[in-house]
Amino acid sequence: MGSSDRLPVGIIGASGYGGVQLVRLLIEHPLVEITYLGGSSSAGQSFADLYPHLGHCVNLAIEDCSPAEIAARAKVVFLSLPNGLASKLAPDLLAHGCKVLDLSADYRFKDLSVYEAWYQGDRRLDQDIAKGAVYGLPELYADRIAEADLVACPGCYPTASLLALLPLLKQGLVDHTTIIIDAKSGTSGGGRQAKTNLLLAEASNSLGAYAIASHRHTPEIEQIASDLSGQDVLVQFTPHLIPMVRGILSTVYARLRDPGFTKDDLLTIYKSFYRSSKWVKVLPSGIYPQTKWALGTNLCYIGLEVDQRTGRIIVVSAIDNLMKGQASQAVQCMNIMMGWDESVGIPQLTFYP
Amino acid sequence: MGSSDRLPVGIIGASGYGGVQLVRLLIEHPLVEITYLGGSSSAGQSFADLYPHLGHCVNLAIEDCSPAEIAARAKVVFLSLPNGLASKLAPDLLAHGCKVLDLSADYRFKDLSVYEAWYQGDRRLDQDIAKGAVYGLPELYADRIAEADLVACPGCYPTASLLALLPLLKQGLVDHTTIIIDAKSGTSGGGRQAKTNLLLAEASNSLGAYAIASHRHTPEIEQIASDLSGQDVLVQFTPHLIPMVRGILSTVYARLRDPGFTKDDLLTIYKSFYRSSKWVKVLPSGIYPQTKWALGTNLCYIGLEVDQRTGRIIVVSAIDNLMKGQASQAVQCMNIMMGWDESVGIPQLTFYP
Amino acid sequence: MGSSDRLPVGIIGASGYGGVQLVRLLIEHPLVEITYLGGSSSAGQSFADLYPHLGHCVNLAIEDCSPAEIAARAKVVFLSLPNGLASKLAPDLLAHGCKVLDLSADYRFKDLSVYEAWYQGDRRLDQDIAKGAVYGLPELYADRIAEADLVACPGCYPTASLLALLPLLKQGLVDHTTIIIDAKSGTSGGGRQAKTNLLLAEASNSLGAYAIASHRHTPEIEQIASDLSGQDVLVQFTPHLIPMVRGILSTVYARLRDPGFTKDDLLTIYKSFYRSSKWVKVLPSGIYPQTKWALGTNLCYIGLEVDQRTGRIIVVSAIDNLMKGQASQAVQCMNIMMGWDESVGIPQLTFYP
Amino acid sequence: MGSSDRLPVGIIGASGYGGVQLVRLLIEHPLVEITYLGGSSSAGQSFADLYPHLGHCVNLAIEDCSPAEIAARAKVVFLSLPNGLASKLAPDLLAHGCKVLDLSADYRFKDLSVYEAWYQGDRRLDQDIAKGAVYGLPELYADRIAEADLVACPGCYPTASLLALLPLLKQGLVDHTTIIIDAKSGTSGGGRQAKTNLLLAEASNSLGAYAIASHRHTPEIEQIASDLSGQDVLVQFTPHLIPMVRGILSTVYARLRDPGFTKDDLLTIYKSFYRSSKWVKVLPSGIYPQTKWALGTNLCYIGLEVDQRTGRIIVVSAIDNLMKGQASQAVQCMNIMMGWDESVGIPQLTFYP
Repeated sequence: MGSSDRLPVGIIGASGYGGVQLVRLLIEHPLVEITYLGGSSSAGQSFADLYPHLGHCVNLAIEDCSPAEIAARAKVVFLSLPNGLASKLAPDLLAHGCKVLDLSADYRFKDLSVYEAWYQGDRRLDQDIAKGAVYGLPELYADRIAEADLVACPGCYPTASLLALLPLLKQGLVDHTTIIIDAKSGTSGGGRQAKTNLLLAEASNSLGAYAIASHRHTPEIEQIASDLSGQDVLVQFTPHLIPMVRGILSTVYARLRDPGFTKDDLLTIYKSFYRSSKWVKVLPSGIYPQTKWALGTNLCYIGLEVDQRTGRIIVVSAIDNLMKGQASQAVQCMNIMMGWDESVGIPQLTFYP
Repeated sequence: MGSSDRLPVGIIGASGYGGVQLVRLLIEHPLVEITYLGGSSSAGQSFADLYPHLGHCVNLAIEDCSPAEIAARAKVVFLSLPNGLASKLAPDLLAHGCKVLDLSADYRFKDLSVYEAWYQGDRRLDQDIAKGAVYGLPELYADRIAEADLVACPGCYPTASLLALLPLLKQGLVDHTTIIIDAKSGTSGGGRQAKTNLLLAEASNSLGAYAIASHRHTPEIEQIASDLSGQDVLVQFTPHLIPMVRGILSTVYARLRDPGFTKDDLLTIYKSFYRSSKWVKVLPSGIYPQTKWALGTNLCYIGLEVDQRTGRIIVVSAIDNLMKGQASQAVQCMNIMMGWDESVGIPQLTFYP
Repeated sequence: MGSSDRLPVGIIGASGYGGVQLVRLLIEHPLVEITYLGGSSSAGQSFADLYPHLGHCVNLAIEDCSPAEIAARAKVVFLSLPNGLASKLAPDLLAHGCKVLDLSADYRFKDLSVYEAWYQGDRRLDQDIAKGAVYGLPELYADRIAEADLVACPGCYPTASLLALLPLLKQGLVDHTTIIIDAKSGTSGGGRQAKTNLLLAEASNSLGAYAIASHRHTPEIEQIASDLSGQDVLVQFTPHLIPMVRGILSTVYARLRDPGFTKDDLLTIYKSFYRSSKWVKVLPSGIYPQTKWALGTNLCYIGLEVDQRTGRIIVVSAIDNLMKGQASQAVQCMNIMMGWDESVGIPQLTFYP
Repeated sequence: MGSSDRLPVGIIGASGYGGVQLVRLLIEHPLVEITYLGGSSSAGQSFADLYPHLGHCVNLAIEDCSPAEIAARAKVVFLSLPNGLASKLAPDLLAHGCKVLDLSADYRFKDLSVYEAWYQGDRRLDQDIAKGAVYGLPELYADRIAEADLVACPGCYPTASLLALLPLLKQGLVDHTTIIIDAKSGTSGGGRQAKTNLLLAEASNSLGAYAIASHRHTPEIEQIASDLSGQDVLVQFTPHLIPMVRGILSTVYARLRDPGFTKDDLLTIYKSFYRSSKWVKVLPSGIYPQTKWALGTNLCYIGLEVDQRTGRIIVVSAIDNLMKGQASQAVQCMNIMMGWDESVGIPQLTFYP
């Protein structure tokens, strides 16, 4: 296919970590062509100045974020912006006929009052548009994504945590009041921001929890969990910062409703649930995932254990926070929105070690 | 005080990470003198060959582990050996009049059948001696340690986890069936063993859980928790390997019996409980510990949060796994056994960052 | 193209880090099919047991290393074995008509007495075969590689160091008696061997030199440098172990023959020299490479500086030691041997950060 | 000694990494008492807010930097400020009778025109004061330091590099036109500044050179080297950023004047040169230093090799950049200035691993 037949796509917020993943993925995607890189603080700079290692294959500058200009040049637009900015751009882009994939939290909530309560932003005036957004977790909502013009891509922690929880919630296998998610993320989750606590000198060779009982991914997980189980679910969610660049591990605890279930039963249920999900790999009994296995891929590895002594199931899931937790999942959604094979242009093999 | 007035001490298993911590600590301890370094595989080697950086201040060779010879030269003996070996040496050493501090699991269990069930070693024939051993957690058992000839120093995970749990258990503040301990350790916890999964190439830039629902520190935590709360306590314990050298973070979850308790209430209770414990630092509201803060010290930092939405308390504790989790806690116990100030020769300030 | 039309290839020594890179690369290579995985200590094991993350896409066991059996199933064979073993297998494989790519040092030396002097192995009896081997550095010897049946793939350090030196040597721009190579490698260069000094606990947060004035990659660099410059060249080569998984940085110093040369002159010369080399990227003035830019790719990034005060050129090159320094360079050589586009199946974009 | 008998000292620039090292060291120093913590951007904050792990032992706030106020409360003042600021404070402090130890570059140069050329600051008007400053490398200038009121503490790279070079320069053993210093530093050398390139996400798992042929520590090394050898010495100095928190390794190359010198000869010369230097440890033949050995100490470990093939000596030195390279060396200087044992309050044993 000639370049002119490719779908023109734009990436707004290209200078951040989400942006550079998208650029890298879409360079190799055979059906699209990057036609617009947008940004605010970096506008006017060459992309290669920001990321010299891509200088030999990206010859684009970061431009302003004018919706009309973007829409004139791109049919699909990825928004990789700080929370609160996508909702200023998306309505215009949609009005111009673009399909929009938003990587921020702006459109993840059906009920904008939840968003406003947890995100402390301005009063949102785009309730109608927010209602039309689809939560971009393809393992759960592929059908809706296929029909959507606006996809709200999930957060990194919710992706890892929900993939570990979905089979349990869907089938009502656990007491939902007992769900605890102890999650661990590499520091790239903090974005390309120069913060003291993310310096190698501070974060390396150390480990800590943060935002205990208050992290904003909590209501996002709860919304989907509630939707799936048909009742209000509250989860205990605790994130930790790990001295590594990429990767999320979610360790999920819940009490089984039926203490007779064995590990083999649960592995069978998980494998069956993810039978047709190319990107979720349920590991054999006794194998637990390493985050490193998922780096640079769209994969989620899942291992589990049942503790007969305590009646609990413990599920461990591993993803690359910038890929399945962000950029490659967005590309997966785009593929589905466009009616393409959901795997086009998405890496499935890491380099190890 | 002249060198000849110092207490002669021996370290058996000096070549491992526990051993080298003990050597380093006892070199600077003003009341003791290292008179014996023992080992098996490394016997005959100069200690400086194993650890060249200490060549300028340690001029000792590793010797065989003959109890008679050790007892002739040392009055206090630290055993830093793989599980199952201390119980072959300790009875003889005690019979020769030595005081013994064992850093392995051999004497941590009142009921040796628990040990045998979880540690799969030979049948133990030293039940009487095991009964006389004291669990070396000074924040809980200082009085007993002062009287003991044989101290079983706690495991690294149990130290961090129990210090986070003690005030809750002692006062019956939580539903003990809801206790979940999600623990994270640096790779030095695996010892100075050349295992593939502990290679930098494998363990760096990655993260995983291991021994889910089956780690041998589980019954150790349960024994003390049960002792303290006066009923049988089962805990959910999940260890994780973190890409860093040293440090343990324990994130502990439990449901409060009284949902009216606030974070401030709990902080008051914790500060009160640890009022006279020099080595446990309860952090101000809103501050959670970093493992890095404890490196090279005997300190345990504790932070906590109460989640009013879920009725749970989340406690986070941080220690250096090789210090408060192993060697410096053993020295703390020795100080108590000898009737000295418990702080003599124990570091309390880390280097940061 | 159907699978049956693909070229059958074997990987001997598949369990190591070189092996797993080759497996990963060749799974995605559109013109080959892996038909044989060989090994000695791991023979009989499933590949997925060694590398569970590849379990979903590799369904092969490690088999014995019988040349006849390998040759019956594979037309091209990669040998990723410890030094000294390839020379036991290669003669038979060649006699059976296989093309062989050896990743060890066995066939890197024209003069086997050099090999024997630096590698202390058995007396080699395959001088004739060694004479026919081609050094697999495609940027220098693509023509010879295209004709070869046996390619000796370069070491990781020589690849990085020679790519930094080639333009200088080819054009006689520096005093060859002043060449100093200060090289730095991630610990994966030590292979998947459980050695104490490669443990994360030891190697992390530290840095040291090793094999000063005696590393076996020295004569390999000297052989090519001498060949290129037409006179005997000795280099000063010092390797260092860096606390990271992958990547090599070579910092090369030499005195310019003509002190009038400027940085811009040299950049022009380098860009011209590598004009048709797809995998070497000469960076703009003022930009020096980061090893991270090359991870997971076959790229070599080069930056340079001229110090007018001292009359020296300083060239810095960065590669992924397991890719351009090992596995992907071998695939590049195979592509050339088979008359294919040299880029088929070789990654050129890293994930950053 | 009662607290009131201790020497009152001030630390200006206490919020940075140099400051927090000084605070930690001086807390444990038996002869001094910290009476003043000064800073500009952090003035008004509690020190414990900046470094919560020290909250239990430091109860001081950061105050403004008024010379009169500082001098009223402290007799010795450490200035740990960005370059260019010390020279605004030091003259006043000296006039008030304080002894001053400056950790910046402001007073390291006898000839302020060199400073102005490399540091691009304002025109300096304190040439007289600069002339009276003593370069605080105790292994070389202990006598002058003992007499000084103003000590210019060396940079981290110069400390490591000069200690490796001193015996060679003092005795004229090498051709001084051939000196190359390839130095590697952990990222804490960049200070507690939130810069993108120092983020864990960027700096971890990577390696690069920077400031090639232009780093400002070059003239500092050259000044001392020239002073020592009695002729103008130019050195080639290349710094690299290593993915670790602390530590510097300097790999120094030079051609021996007399090619007959052996490694044993040189080791004898080095051991003799440093015979009375408590903090420099020359390692046995065949042992090269690891930076980790020096962490948290004032030690410098040195190993060396002679390459008979090339006629060069290669010396490798390792220090903790924040200790011997900064704070503990300053304390060592203070001890000498005060006529105390130079070792008082200075750590000499690291924790390993």
